[in-house]
Amino acid sequence: MYIFNEPAASGVAGIEHATLAGSRHGLKGLSVWKQSVSPGSATPPHRHDCEEVVLCSGGDGELHIDGKTVRFGAGQTVVIPPNVDHQIINAGKEALDIVAVFSVSPVVVHLPDGDEIVLPWET
Amino acid sequence: MYIFNEPAASGVAGIEHATLAGSRHGLKGLSVWKQSVSPGSATPPHRHDCEEVVLCSGGDGELHIDGKTVRFGAGQTVVIPPNVDHQIINAGKEALDIVAVFSVSPVVVHLPDGDEIVLPWET
Repeated sequence: MYIFNEPAASGVAGIEHATLAGSRHGLKGLSVWKQSVSPGSATPPHRHDCEEVVLCSGGDGELHIDGKTVRFGAGQTVVIPPNVDHQIINAGKEALDIVAVFSVSPVVVHLPDGDEIVLPWET
Repeated sequence: MYIFNEPAASGVAGIEHATLAGSRHGLKGLSVWKQSVSPGSATPPHRHDCEEVVLCSGGDGELHIDGKTVRFGAGQTVVIPPNVDHQIINAGKEALDIVAVFSVSPVVVHLPDGDEIVLPWET
């Protein structure tokens, strides 16, 4: 089997999540998540020891990283280096729809203070 | 700079291509390509020594792999293991729109006979 299409509920308030591809599909060097962040919601500030690329398909997003605020929207791509604390925020009035791609599977996520975030979804 | 949005022309007949993220953005373990395959067109049969995930946003696609034909369409995700010859074909009457993600950058692609395909786009 090479096709997977598995939307799943998220355990994080304000974030809908589906793991489109990851460890359960035999991947070791790729994880692909689809997320929809509701208006006013955000990821927690966090970091991970892998590269991340975010593809935005709708809404108005803000990336807070390295003391900077970077706006992004539909059709734009965001590149986040490894081990840099960052936060993605829905800065608009509509859902912020993104696909996030990571260079490892599973993805291990840490808070800025170093504590691991136990993700409520399979990565 | 963390935002990139760089559509680019493709040198391959029947395939429009944009490298959304890759080596030029400092990535080593991720490449993200956006492609639109015209009706009747296809990639050549090929393989690469990295994992690939294909996200389909429109059209009707066929993946030929391991002697099998797998159909996929909008909203579906295809996982392709490393070093397996495969081909993606537009099997419909509309454009086949995909995002292809690879677990390395740059991506090195080989024909089934082992010859390297010199890609006309930056990976």
